Formats: sequence, C-alpha cells, structure tokens
Amino acid sequence: MLVGRQNNRARPQQRMRVRTAEDVAHRQRKGVVPAASNAHVGGHPFARLADNECLYQYESRSKAAFDKIEGVLRQIAQYQHRVDFVSQAQHITKQEFGFALPEQMLDNTWVAPLDMKAIYAWCVFETFHRFADEFYSTEPLAHPQDQQFQAFLESCGFHIFDVSPCADGRLAHAVRYVLRLPHKHVRRKSYAGAMFDVEDSLQKWVKIEHIRHREGKPNAASEPTRYLKAAMYHYSSSQPDVEGCAAHGSDSVKAAAEALGRLEAFQQGVENSFCCGASIDLMLIGIDTDNDSIRIHIPDAQGRISGECFIDAGDVYNQTRHLNASNDLAIVGDLLKEKANEFGVQPSDGMVRMITRLILNNISQIDYVRKYFKGSYSDVGHQERFIGMGIGFEEVQLRNLTYFAYLKTVEQGAKDLDVGIKIFTGLNIKRGLPAPVVIRYDYHGNVPGARDRAVARCKCLDLAMRQRFPEQAEKGLLHTLLVVRDCNADNKIEVVASSVTPEDTGGHH
Amino acid sequence: MLVGRQNNRARPQQRMRVRTAEDVAHRQRKGVVPAASNAHVGGHPFARLADNECLYQYESRSKAAFDKIEGVLRQIAQYQHRVDFVSQAQHITKQEFGFALPEQMLDNTWVAPLDMKAIYAWCVFETFHRFADEFYSTEPLAHPQDQQFQAFLESCGFHIFDVSPCADGRLAHAVRYVLRLPHKHVRRKSYAGAMFDVEDSLQKWVKIEHIRHREGKPNAASEPTRYLKAAMYHYSSSQPDVEGCAAHGSDSVKAAAEALGRLEAFQQGVENSFCCGASIDLMLIGIDTDNDSIRIHIPDAQGRISGECFIDAGDVYNQTRHLNASNDLAIVGDLLKEKANEFGVQPSDGMVRMITRLILNNISQIDYVRKYFKGSYSDVGHQERFIGMGIGFEEVQLRNLTYFAYLKTVEQGAKDLDVGIKIFTGLNIKRGLPAPVVIRYDYHGNVPGARDRAVARCKCLDLAMRQRFPEQAEKGLLHTLLVVRDCNADNKIEVVASSVTPEDTGGHH
Repeated sequence: MLVGRQNNRARPQQRMRVRTAEDVAHRQRKGVVPAASNAHVGGHPFARLADNECLYQYESRSKAAFDKIEGVLRQIAQYQHRVDFVSQAQHITKQEFGFALPEQMLDNTWVAPLDMKAIYAWCVFETFHRFADEFYSTEPLAHPQDQQFQAFLESCGFHIFDVSPCADGRLAHAVRYVLRLPHKHVRRKSYAGAMFDVEDSLQKWVKIEHIRHREGKPNAASEPTRYLKAAMYHYSSSQPDVEGCAAHGSDSVKAAAEALGRLEAFQQGVENSFCCGASIDLMLIGIDTDNDSIRIHIPDAQGRISGECFIDAGDVYNQTRHLNASNDLAIVGDLLKEKANEFGVQPSDGMVRMITRLILNNISQIDYVRKYFKGSYSDVGHQERFIGMGIGFEEVQLRNLTYFAYLKTVEQGAKDLDVGIKIFTGLNIKRGLPAPVVIRYDYHGNVPGARDRAVARCKCLDLAMRQRFPEQAEKGLLHTLLVVRDCNADNKIEVVASSVTPEDTGGHH
Repeated sequence: MLVGRQNNRARPQQRMRVRTAEDVAHRQRKGVVPAASNAHVGGHPFARLADNECLYQYESRSKAAFDKIEGVLRQIAQYQHRVDFVSQAQHITKQEFGFALPEQMLDNTWVAPLDMKAIYAWCVFETFHRFADEFYSTEPLAHPQDQQFQAFLESCGFHIFDVSPCADGRLAHAVRYVLRLPHKHVRRKSYAGAMFDVEDSLQKWVKIEHIRHREGKPNAASEPTRYLKAAMYHYSSSQPDVEGCAAHGSDSVKAAAEALGRLEAFQQGVENSFCCGASIDLMLIGIDTDNDSIRIHIPDAQGRISGECFIDAGDVYNQTRHLNASNDLAIVGDLLKEKANEFGVQPSDGMVRMITRLILNNISQIDYVRKYFKGSYSDVGHQERFIGMGIGFEEVQLRNLTYFAYLKTVEQGAKDLDVGIKIFTGLNIKRGLPAPVVIRYDYHGNVPGARDRAVARCKCLDLAMRQRFPEQAEKGLLHTLLVVRDCNADNKIEVVASSVTPEDTGGHH
C-alpha cells in the first residue's frame, strides 16, 4: 500500500533501506547522529529566535492559566467549612485566576460538600473562554508572513494547503508551531490517526475549485496550481511502543502507510470524479511528538510518495548547526535534493521549494523545544486540558491543550470521541475529575438560520455523547460547554449552554 | 415569512384573498368548482391516456406483490403443525410469490411456533429486492421524453430541477407520477415537512455549478441558466385536519410558509456565500394527497413567491375538460397568465413555460386518479409498505410504497426516522407485525474505499436505529435490510446484511 503507486523498476537498491523514527533514536543513542542533549540550549543559526520567544510566552502563559486550576481549587477545598468561605474562596480565585466563581456554586457548603467536579469544569471552561477571546481580539499568534504565504504557496504550484494531523493533542500545534505557518491560511481538519474523511475532503475540494472558477480566489482556475493535501502521522522516539499513535497501535510504519493510503484514495477520488486532468498533490509528514522534529516524505516527479524516502528535519538541524544562516534556504534545499537523489527520486521544483520551507521552519521549532523544553517535552504523553468536539477550534494552536475530534455527529465520529474519553479517563476521571468537553459548531452566518442550526447541532452532539457515556455523565464526570462561532464574521466564540450552570449558560458570556 | 420578500406596495387588493386547499374542497362541495365525482371515469382531452395505462400497470402489480404477503402468510400459518408443512409452505409461496422461503425459517415448527415476524420481514425484503432489480434491469418507468427534458429545462432558463418533497410516502411518486418528469433528470431529496437541509443543498449547488464550470455539463457556466429548487408540501382536501402533513400539524398554510422559508434561506445562502450575482430560482408546490392535484405558487418577475398566488391544476382540469387538446400548452399557459394577472404578478417567460408544463403534466395524473382510483385514493392516509432510510432509493417512485427518510445519521435525522416509526407503529407494530426498514447508502464507486464506507455507514445507521428503538428491536418488531448501490455504475442494488437471516446476508443475493 505504501509503495503501491510507484514504479518499482525505477527504484534503486538503496531505497529499500527503511529508517524509522526508532532507528534515528537508536542512532542518536549510539552517537551516529549528534544527540539532542548536546544542544539543549538551542540557538541554531537558522532558527528565528525572536519568534520562538513570542511563541513560548504565549504557550506558557496560556497553559499556566489552565494548570493552576487544580492547585487553587485544592487550596479552596480546605476552607469550605469556614463561615467566611465564600468571600475567602472568591478572594483567592480572583487573585489567582482573575475571575470569581459563580456564588451559587459556593453556597450551602454547611449542608453539602462543594461540587468540586462542577467547579473544576466551570474553571476550565471560563479559562478556555478567556483564552479564546484573547485569541480573536489580540491575535497573539498572528504570523509575521501572514500576507506573503499565499503568494509563496502559489509560487510552489499550489493554491491551498490542507492538513489533516492526528486528533491527538500533541499535534494540535502542528500548523502554527511545528510547521510555522499562518493558521488562517492553512486548512486543518484533525482525525484520529490522521484518517481523514475522503468524502468530506472531496466536498471541500469542489468548493475550493468552484470559488477559483467563479471568483478567481485565491487564484484563477486557469492558473496551473493544485490543491495540496497533507496528512500528518506521529511517533515517539523515546517511547515508540507506548507513546506513538493510539489509532495505529503505536506502529509508525502502519501509521504512515494508512495515512498515505487515505491520501491516495482522496487523490484518486478527485481524478475519477472529475474530468480534464483534475487532480491534487499529496504530502505525507511524520512528527516525533517528543521533540516536534518532522520528516517529510519526498514525492517523485509524478507526485508518488514512498514510506522510505523522506527528509528528517532533526538530521538537517544537526547537519547545519554551524553553518551561516544567510544561505539557509539554499542549504536546506541542497540537503533535500541530496536525499532525493539518494533514493532516485526527482521531486518537482515547486515541491522542493515547499518542503524546503517546511523543513527550515521546523528547525525553529526543534530549536524551540531544545531551548524551552530541554530537547524533549516533559509531557511526552497525553496532557490535554480539555476535549474539543465538533467543527471549529481555530483558536486552539497549542500542543497538548486539546484533544480534538473533528466530527459532525457522534454516530459517525464515535471512534474519535472514544479515544478522547479514554485519554481523559486516564488524565482526569480516574482521579475523580470530570472530562471537560467543549462542543463546538462553527457556522456561516451569511446563510439564514445557520446559527440556529449550529446551536441545535451542538445540543444534538451533547445529547449523543451523554447517551454514549451515560455512567460518566450521570456521575458528573463529563461536563460540557456548548459553543458556536460565526466563521464568516471573524467573531469571538459564543457560549450557548453549559452543563455546569445550565440556568445561566454557564456564566460564560 | 410567507410574504416577507415581496413588495407590498405592488400588491393589488385581490391578492389578499387566500384560497387554501380546504377552501377548494369546500367550493367543490358547494358546486362552485365542478366536483371530481363528475369525472371519475377520467379521459381528459389533455391527459396522456397510454402513459397512464403503463403507469397503472406498473403501480398495481408492484404494490400487489407487497400486498399479498400478509394473506399468504396467514394461509401458511394454519398449516404449521402439519407433518408436510415445509413442502406445503414452499409450494404455496412459490406459487403466490414466485420464490421459496429459506428452509431454516420453516424448520422446527414441531417445537417452536413460526417466527412470523421474521418471515414477514423476509418476504417484504425479498419483494423489495425483486422490485428494485426489475427497476434497474427493465426500466419500467423510463420516461418517453427522457432525452428531451434537459433541453426543455434549459429553454426555461434552468439547468437543474431539484425537488424536496415531504418524506411522507404519499409523495414518493411526486417526480415520475405527479409531475410526470423523468426521474433520472430530477434531483429528489425527501425530508419530513419538506424541510430540506440548507447546508446540504448548498454543497449540492456548489457541486453542480462546479461541473458546469469545469466540464460544461449539463451546460456551460457561461449560459445564463439557474438552479431551480422546489419544495413540495401537502394537504388532504377530504380530511384536512387529520391527513395533512404530520410535520406541520396538518396545517397547510404553515406547511407552505415553512417550506417557502426554507427555500428562501437556501436562496439567500447562495447569494450571500458567493459573489458575481450567484442565485437560484425557487418553486413552491402544494399537493392534495387525496387526488394528486397540485398547486404551483407563481413567482413574480423577481422570483418572489407568495402563499396566495398559485395556480391549481384541479381547477385547470375542470376548466379545460371539454377543450381541444391540440392547443393544450397554450390554453394552460393562458390560464396561468390570467391567474398571475389576477394577483398582479408577472412571472418570467421561462417560469411560465415550466409551470405550464408541470400543470399540464399533472392533468394526466389527476385523470389517472379519476380513472383508476375513482377520483380519490382509497388509501387517503398512510399505507407505506416499508421504511427507507439513508441515501438513495431512486427505484422508489410509487405512492405510499415507502416512508423515506433521507439522512446520513440517525443522530441528525432522528426526527424524520421517528415519524416513520410512528407511522409503522400504526400500520404494523400494533398488529404484531414488524416495521421493515431498508437501510441504504448509495456511493460513488469511482472513489476508492467508497463501497466499504457505505457498508460501514449502513451498519452504523442500523445500530443507531436499534439503540433509538430498543424495545421494538428486542421484540423482533424492527427488521432491517442493509443495501448499498454504486450510483456511478448505474448498477443494481447490493444487499450486504439483514436482521432476518444474518448469517447468509438474508438470502437476498
């Protein structure tokens, strides 16, 4: 399946050598590849250190807001039988969180213990709401080359870059951090195991192409550019058998092969459904979730991808650590061509430009992890703060913040949701804390009735999830915040309901 | 809402007069309009009597095959304790149905009674399977003007005719019988109350327009034709309060207003989502399910539709009963213009041509009901033979054969399914007979993996329905046949599973 579309006769012997993430880690341990530990301070000449600093500030303070919740609530819990509990609790939360709790959640502690599960969920939701509001109002992740990206993409021969990472929270920062791309200009749809929906993608392809025909946006249909679809699978170099992709049993070869199979199905679907040479270009990306180092599989001139022929950004990082940055693009480009030659593969010029850019961008991210996380995240495993479910979540561009299941119904997306609940059973439920689930439906406000339908869909998802996990819901171990957003208006999110304080839409106004 | 988009100043006084279906019936009873009973023998000069004969032959023999099932099984039931029961039963069923029953369903009657519920469902499914095979192999409903319809449509200024009738089985024959159109060239998507999905329709619009841009099919995008979307609501002139549309509480004014609201939302969605004057044309059709007489609301020059201004095919039938057929189109066209003038409405020439054709076509159907059903169906209410659920069912073009819920998931389409189960509770379940449910997913076989996904979706729908109606499922009062079809290959249907004989896919090969 992985090599199904390539011409075997043209493939030289050396292409048969498979280098997996595990191999790389093994080679690093043996000293063949310079180990990350040598460079924990970061500071690669090609890395954009100022960007890294901004991104780190945003990531650390955003996550800190979520991470202090448990500690503060533990602190409050000890005072719950004091006479002045309410004012004491409000004093602490205002100081620590910057917001007060709803009074009705604190009353009556003389007769019943605090509903800490609900309070915890309320705090997570309130923190998420503030986080989302900041994202849309101050644009902390605005990209320095936001305006230039589309022109660059077109210069590579593409008019859209559509990425399906795995739904795993450790890939939620794939676009803005790992690939350093402007999130507004990249389509992201996450699925467990990167196994995106082919029919959904076909619909999106038709819509994109139609707007090119009708409105000449982002470029005219007569321009010979193509839709570029990428799938991003993942693995863990430190704990390959445990912390890889759950959807593929932590088997990185299987993860790559199945993601590639899905890409090829989408491509063939386009080719078979439409005439006149309709096709798309494909890109297969792997990511080591320990350190955000990516590998990009290099397509040949016909766009065919193999599992073996890839360029590893970690290798490039090490090979270029002492070189001059003034020529960074050319250096990375040469390394890419060298790697392609090694496998007898001749990628198109545009694809070389595109991959070169992504590898170079990723060097900044590798440096970021080296500098701020000592070369490997301390949360190598799952550490998501909440589950996101539905359609939307543009504001979530941070690693391990959200397990995100892109789905229209629980009925069809049950597999993705189940993985999320399983993860949160380990993270929260086992410790008596609820899984906070933000249910989301973005809508096009210029279509009459769309908001009402989005609200109805949120409620439908909420109900379906509770029916699927009745025990957790019954015990207060599943709390939900229902959110919609008009994606045409570039608006803030709108909270429409919450299981925590149903009567007043959760106080999340 | 109903008159929301029209210019009130331009509306003359007489437009305020509302004539509902009930009014018409009342006027008929008072003799103002010639009553249907005068013409029960049919034979209107404008009617296509030979077509009617063919359509009746097909309808009557198709339904007879379903309708004899119960009687034959009652007959068999009485022999179940005889020693030669199996051969006796097979003899009778072969003779009556033309097929034998699976032996394993007949064995063991000495120790346990026949599972008549399962046998009944098996027979319904087998009959449906034969019915569908006949439809695709011999094309009994091939339309005499099949090849000319598209040219006619384009001459009216449209490139596609997309109809959403109510899901009610009494409208399942809307395209081929009531409107006398070639079913292959009309898009039909049924929803309870004709309340079609706006987002789904927008996707379809984009797809249709894209193919015009890319492939020039059915005509080039440069041609100034439009997408024509129709909604068809219904009422019952004999029992307006009981046998109208369940989704709108048998209120025909509400049914019309809400269908129109949905049409306008779709139109506005297209206009707001796409530039360059993108729009669609709308048509609102009402049908009296007693006698298949339609009314078409006449849009003004700007395409705006009101609830009051419509032409009633029953009136036209009566007014033209003694006229010469050689000039039928012109006569109906004049009556239409007269009616439009009465309301101060000036429809476009293309719309006049289109409505004229539909009214003239419907005269044949009114005549059909007069001749073969004495002017009013004996099954004024629900008399569906099975429920159809999912995507597809092109082969079902017969009245009251199928309650059809067009849905992708039970989660989103629950309302439509619930109506179907409610109907079958009255028809079957109360009498101890199961609701036979055909679950269907048509797929595009040229997209890799599409068949497997269609099969998986069928299974997912099956499971979701059983979870929604656990008691009925448990008691054997809900039986399912899972069917897929490659709609690209113009293939027969393919049975993939059945609850009746799960181990051998139901014997329906």
